[in-house]
Amino acid sequence: MFLETIEKANDIKQIDRESWGELAQEIRQFLIEKISVTGGHLGSNLGAVELTMALHLALSLPEDKIIWDVGHQSYTHKILTGRKSGFESLRQFHGLSGFPKRKESCCDVFDTGHSSTSISAGLGLVKARDLRGESNVVVSVIGDGSLTGGMAYEALNNAAKLETNFIIILNDNNMSISENVGGVSKYLNNIRTATGYLDLKAGIYHALQGAKRGNNTIRTIRKVKSSFKQLVIPGMLFEDMGITYLGPVDGHNIEGLVRVIGEARRVKGPVLIHALTQKGKGYVPAERHPARFHGAEPFDIETGLPSKPRTVANYTDVFSTVMCKLGQRDKNIVAITAAMPDGTGLKRFRNMYPDRFFDVGIAEEHAVTFAAGLAAGGLKPVVAVYSSFLQRAYDQILHDVCLQKLPVIFAIDRAGLVGSDGETHQGIFDFTYLTGIPNMCVCAPKNKWELSDMMKFAVSYHGPIAVRYPRGSAYDGLKAYRAPVELGKAEWIYKEWEIALFAVGSMVRTAENVREQLKNKGYGVSLVNARFVKPIDEEAVREACRDHVLIVTLEENVSCGGYGEKVLDCMNRNGFSNHYLNISIPDAYVEHGDVEALKREVGIDADGVTRRILQALEAGV
Amino acid sequence: MFLETIEKANDIKQIDRESWGELAQEIRQFLIEKISVTGGHLGSNLGAVELTMALHLALSLPEDKIIWDVGHQSYTHKILTGRKSGFESLRQFHGLSGFPKRKESCCDVFDTGHSSTSISAGLGLVKARDLRGESNVVVSVIGDGSLTGGMAYEALNNAAKLETNFIIILNDNNMSISENVGGVSKYLNNIRTATGYLDLKAGIYHALQGAKRGNNTIRTIRKVKSSFKQLVIPGMLFEDMGITYLGPVDGHNIEGLVRVIGEARRVKGPVLIHALTQKGKGYVPAERHPARFHGAEPFDIETGLPSKPRTVANYTDVFSTVMCKLGQRDKNIVAITAAMPDGTGLKRFRNMYPDRFFDVGIAEEHAVTFAAGLAAGGLKPVVAVYSSFLQRAYDQILHDVCLQKLPVIFAIDRAGLVGSDGETHQGIFDFTYLTGIPNMCVCAPKNKWELSDMMKFAVSYHGPIAVRYPRGSAYDGLKAYRAPVELGKAEWIYKEWEIALFAVGSMVRTAENVREQLKNKGYGVSLVNARFVKPIDEEAVREACRDHVLIVTLEENVSCGGYGEKVLDCMNRNGFSNHYLNISIPDAYVEHGDVEALKREVGIDADGVTRRILQALEAGV
Repeated sequence: MFLETIEKANDIKQIDRESWGELAQEIRQFLIEKISVTGGHLGSNLGAVELTMALHLALSLPEDKIIWDVGHQSYTHKILTGRKSGFESLRQFHGLSGFPKRKESCCDVFDTGHSSTSISAGLGLVKARDLRGESNVVVSVIGDGSLTGGMAYEALNNAAKLETNFIIILNDNNMSISENVGGVSKYLNNIRTATGYLDLKAGIYHALQGAKRGNNTIRTIRKVKSSFKQLVIPGMLFEDMGITYLGPVDGHNIEGLVRVIGEARRVKGPVLIHALTQKGKGYVPAERHPARFHGAEPFDIETGLPSKPRTVANYTDVFSTVMCKLGQRDKNIVAITAAMPDGTGLKRFRNMYPDRFFDVGIAEEHAVTFAAGLAAGGLKPVVAVYSSFLQRAYDQILHDVCLQKLPVIFAIDRAGLVGSDGETHQGIFDFTYLTGIPNMCVCAPKNKWELSDMMKFAVSYHGPIAVRYPRGSAYDGLKAYRAPVELGKAEWIYKEWEIALFAVGSMVRTAENVREQLKNKGYGVSLVNARFVKPIDEEAVREACRDHVLIVTLEENVSCGGYGEKVLDCMNRNGFSNHYLNISIPDAYVEHGDVEALKREVGIDADGVTRRILQALEAGV
Repeated sequence: MFLETIEKANDIKQIDRESWGELAQEIRQFLIEKISVTGGHLGSNLGAVELTMALHLALSLPEDKIIWDVGHQSYTHKILTGRKSGFESLRQFHGLSGFPKRKESCCDVFDTGHSSTSISAGLGLVKARDLRGESNVVVSVIGDGSLTGGMAYEALNNAAKLETNFIIILNDNNMSISENVGGVSKYLNNIRTATGYLDLKAGIYHALQGAKRGNNTIRTIRKVKSSFKQLVIPGMLFEDMGITYLGPVDGHNIEGLVRVIGEARRVKGPVLIHALTQKGKGYVPAERHPARFHGAEPFDIETGLPSKPRTVANYTDVFSTVMCKLGQRDKNIVAITAAMPDGTGLKRFRNMYPDRFFDVGIAEEHAVTFAAGLAAGGLKPVVAVYSSFLQRAYDQILHDVCLQKLPVIFAIDRAGLVGSDGETHQGIFDFTYLTGIPNMCVCAPKNKWELSDMMKFAVSYHGPIAVRYPRGSAYDGLKAYRAPVELGKAEWIYKEWEIALFAVGSMVRTAENVREQLKNKGYGVSLVNARFVKPIDEEAVREACRDHVLIVTLEENVSCGGYGEKVLDCMNRNGFSNHYLNISIPDAYVEHGDVEALKREVGIDADGVTRRILQALEAGV
């Protein structure tokens, strides 16, 4: 067992060249075993084993810096830097993060989570290094999926000006989460499959192997390339931008990778190494079903099937179904995803209406302005996106959609606490950034039927509107409460006296529980399903203020700029000074862990809420 | 006078080919005369006269659609679509907008203002056209500066998949506002200047002129290109992405442009026409000083000098000076701009410390994550940026800077109402989107000395911090009030009783005026300079609540998620129920016009505020 000997960074260098392959197998086995228990990103990590080993063999950490784009492929890096034991608690509350974290190790130099940031961050580290007179190596590892994100291109465009060392490794598995799309993807595919490819690769390899190390080698490569210009020229797109291109190289050949990284270190200026890898490499189910094993739930290693198959529909399923129905009724409805046809539930819509489905790649900004264009052209676009990724398109929502009051529908999935992906993926800011935008309408359903009803309302609404729903099982309680959805109208579920709970979306279910607990203590408790976070139902607030001593708002969003502040503002404008309690997520990032544990931690679980209400009542209501 | 005959769209088609040049001269003269009086974007419009004429000659509006990236180059388009007379009131309150506006004309199909959106929007219009079975032409006109923005690349990457007509015109003047930067810029420059260029151009032109119109021509062009692959191959970067490239063509040759647009219409799939233009063309001062004539104040036509030279320092000047001082004191301070070394005042810093200055091009997202990388590398980056453009980098601030508590300083200029640029440029959302982000610190100075003091505080602060200041003259009142800047501490300027005004930044000056008016009516009025919008000074709020009947907050930001809501929340949490009045910008976009007129319109001018306070007092305080 070579893996046992690796306790900290650089231990890998003690292992003989001929045993590298064996270590790779051990790491792969380790990853499969651990992730089968905890869940996690399996496919991308299996694809990056050799690449990560090669980096650790060729570099010296922590002096040299590796920035992992998106970061969920950094498991092998964690294993090689002394965090093996952490995999028992991977992605669990207070356990090892599934992403690079500076607070976890000095070998993690930049936290990531969202796509396409690594070249920008790497460039910053390079410039800082140079200005401080240091000379370490900086490597950004970016997938071909992340390369469709605009900021990666902005960074490449800037990297071109460098006259100092910077290595970009393009980890090209021809996939993002699902299949990759767009011109650049086609271009990379051409490199992989073109007639000239093998010859050329041989040519470059010959040059690499035969020539002496040093700048001469690079010159030789340039000469080789130059003589092949009549064929498909690998990397000309990058070279045109001013970036030296090396490759394509086999991303599962450790020796080859170590060699090419060594060559890249000798190039002055930015170098891009194009490594071809396979997502899920070495585990047949993951090779065959890359989307399923992207972010996997715990699974049975033998069969590859989930250990606890899902029995209850989640909100994504509900959205998926209603989209197909709406698409059938109205041919002007079109759907847009940024590289997540599976995750957002649009796959069925795509299969039924392929002409009206658009996967734009990891490109949220373009997705939103493209939707604005579709709406300006008379269609009804639905942008299905995760809450935390829509942050990327804040300006596009404000500047391209809402300014023109274009009827774009945002179906915001994974809103609220998402759990094990942690800080970078929690969807806890959308009420704040969306309700600050004029003309925007924002609503959230209490249960699965209301999600359907709200989507129907949304496609009939003449302006920008967001429907926001959480990750996980769709609530199927409160079925009897299905008053028609009306703009800015809340729904009274229980009307009593003393305490009025105004709950948004997922918090309606929590509020029911809170209400039970308070009623057991003898209080009269009303429950209002807020439905709309913008515009809020001012009449319902006034009504509640007239009959209740304490008004409580409950939301799964940060307090700053959330629903609660709008209700308090409304109370103030209407001259009410009832006691008021704001239940929301405190002004801080929320780490990874089980959603229920996180809710307890931040005090928005039913018991915690009840306790805080009782405290408020004791304190003087 | 040919210009006189143009009253509406398509009138230009009545003008004979041989008079086109004369019309161009008349338009140019018209632009210079009008803009010399009203101010406006002169350089870009002078550069786009022939290109716009060619589009109007080759297309039929409003059936065909033109999307103007950024949009400030659309003046000739406005002239040719019946809006000549509007130029008397250009950029004035209730007058003609300086940007395309759908509400202004059916020939404006998509509102723009920020950079790099036109290809995404155009692609949306193309897909909508196809799905609706229509067949109009869609053209997106984008500058080479806008092409450095990531979302333009995201859109190009998607356009590549089209098998239907879409024309992109690259209006290449080798400039954004200042000189253009980056790999792609160098690439375009190579096309312009390469040895092979003239031959190649001749070759393409020969093909265009000689061949019959129709698809054959395109095939001929492809053949011509193919035979030149040994030379610099114009447009291979675009062709590699899957976009047919035509050019480069002379962007001031109307006949040539009309011809090439005609050819482009015959290509199936996306076509990029590369047109070379000169910013400021035909007016010597604008040709020589492109940055000065980008967004010009009224000027003297003879000399090109401003009609009313600026005599008072503005906040940008103050920032410029303090940055040079700080840079001298601490060599870890570096400065970043997204294509605005002039506008943000960083030019002097660049001249003094060229190694520590980074112009990343129009690429706000990269700018911010690059800054995060610099900070992670041990430096103190200052990102100088306009408020409305920073919206582009919301996710990067949240995800790359604040999550890691990296000490990046945001110097946010043009915050609050900016005036004549209007809706797309008002900096009225930053308190909302920034204060919703954990770990962020946000402050705003009351006068010019405080801007210096806050910048000094910011570079010594160990975390992300934004200093936010408005466009225009730096206030030089209240000089005596210069208590040291402390994190989260407000400054009491006048301490009386009855009414407490908590004013942020620019509103301190307004509040002084309000206070005078209220004192004249016999009220006791305290004035607090808030200084920090996050974290707010809770102790100051408590103190005020103890001694005052009415608390008023004043800010130049939208009400949703602004300073006022934080103060009200603080009052509530502390059990105070004093009367409270929130003075801020209502939840709506604010059009263009003189800043003072806009303040009156939205009710945040001194008289309006005083009136509202008196009403509140009458209503029952």
